[in-house]
Amino acid sequence: MEKSRKQKDWKENRQEEAEYVDQIEGRNSVLELLNSDRDINKILIAKGEKHGSINKIIAIAKEKKILISEIEKAKFNQIAKEPNNQGVIAIVPPFSYCEIDDILELAKQRKEEPFVVILDGIEDPHNLGSIIRTAETAGVHGIIIPKRRAASVNSTVSKVSAGAVEYMKIARVGNINEAIKELKEKGLWIVGTDMNTNTYYNKQDLKGPIGIVIGSEGFGMGRLVKENCDFLVKIPMKGKITSLNASVSAGIVIYETVRQRNK
Amino acid sequence: MEKSRKQKDWKENRQEEAEYVDQIEGRNSVLELLNSDRDINKILIAKGEKHGSINKIIAIAKEKKILISEIEKAKFNQIAKEPNNQGVIAIVPPFSYCEIDDILELAKQRKEEPFVVILDGIEDPHNLGSIIRTAETAGVHGIIIPKRRAASVNSTVSKVSAGAVEYMKIARVGNINEAIKELKEKGLWIVGTDMNTNTYYNKQDLKGPIGIVIGSEGFGMGRLVKENCDFLVKIPMKGKITSLNASVSAGIVIYETVRQRNK
Repeated sequence: MEKSRKQKDWKENRQEEAEYVDQIEGRNSVLELLNSDRDINKILIAKGEKHGSINKIIAIAKEKKILISEIEKAKFNQIAKEPNNQGVIAIVPPFSYCEIDDILELAKQRKEEPFVVILDGIEDPHNLGSIIRTAETAGVHGIIIPKRRAASVNSTVSKVSAGAVEYMKIARVGNINEAIKELKEKGLWIVGTDMNTNTYYNKQDLKGPIGIVIGSEGFGMGRLVKENCDFLVKIPMKGKITSLNASVSAGIVIYETVRQRNK
Repeated sequence: MEKSRKQKDWKENRQEEAEYVDQIEGRNSVLELLNSDRDINKILIAKGEKHGSINKIIAIAKEKKILISEIEKAKFNQIAKEPNNQGVIAIVPPFSYCEIDDILELAKQRKEEPFVVILDGIEDPHNLGSIIRTAETAGVHGIIIPKRRAASVNSTVSKVSAGAVEYMKIARVGNINEAIKELKEKGLWIVGTDMNTNTYYNKQDLKGPIGIVIGSEGFGMGRLVKENCDFLVKIPMKGKITSLNASVSAGIVIYETVRQRNK
């Protein structure tokens, strides 16, 4: 057990090193990237793939004076991290995480009550990407994720988010409980999703300044995190299966918040 | 183009052949399977994996007089289709699809207004599995999927559904539009999700006998399917990304229906 934990830490450190360079793959993700303000070092295109929307990518990149390299397919496939890269990779500076204050500042700028999503240990990059996409479409001001034992923003997350990472403020914190305390001090109500409560998510007032906590895929929220929540809510389960996919539960609770705020 | 279509048809035919045997992998999925009424031909366990919840699986299987085979890891890995199989595979008769009438009959038995989900071309098995899981927890009576150019129930779908396929009625039809017409004749209102409408999903009455149509990942609903809907609804999008993951949109609209019905 101790050994496997050490190995995991080692892996995580390696992962942090690897984040000094980053790449975005796939046509839609690269197009979203080009439409955002994020820096791009270079765009790589696989030889023989110069058709369809790749031409649009090349045109925008040329206009923005971004270096384009056409490279042999064999070499391209060595660089690619995703099988579904569609012949295009953008090399970018690593994802830049923000501070919690930046998220609250954005809410202030938009003259809206803060609307924050806190992920307590989402491990699957597909779930993280999907939650970032939902949060962006729902108008969430920012997402808080833990530094350790959780998925961080990488090329898979970017692709699954359909490019939403480019527009979403994400803070990566050492301690989720400290982050929750900070949010509470700044006036946010913290709502956690948990099966062991009597309150349905749609019966809880979600209109004020709010932080919604989504637990990990296998274990839900940590004990301390649960205790730090102001309210716990549950989603009704009428069948034999007693839990939802993490990105689906996040979608349901995030959009219930939107529904109540738009009333 | 014509050639690749032929290849696709050939692949689909091969896939149909392959469905004469089926396998469910992973501890939770096999446990769900054992708790359901579905037939099991045999359970395969990888040598050296007899610990934790596998013991529970063995105990239940013995009680149910199901054949258990312990096999060498190398051979086991050849049989497994999922890397994340956790050392256990159940060999089962192929998934048995139902008829549309069976779905309506279930609603009648439960003395509820019919609540059906229609998937117009969901291609990603992860989305299909996740939608089946959401539908099961929400109390949906059945799901309708097309026979061609769409994901069908396989071991990946089963695993992602967290075993919900075992409890969900799924009809696979040759023509989605014919299925929609049949549902309309039987009194269901058909609601499609589409961006090009002015009605928000939560402003539409979803309380009666209802069929909710979810379009494909890339293209949404087909033109004819859209025309056959009684109502179109949209999910508000406040960000720069203009669409949600298919299983997340399905979750949001399905649970809005639950919310309205429970009022």
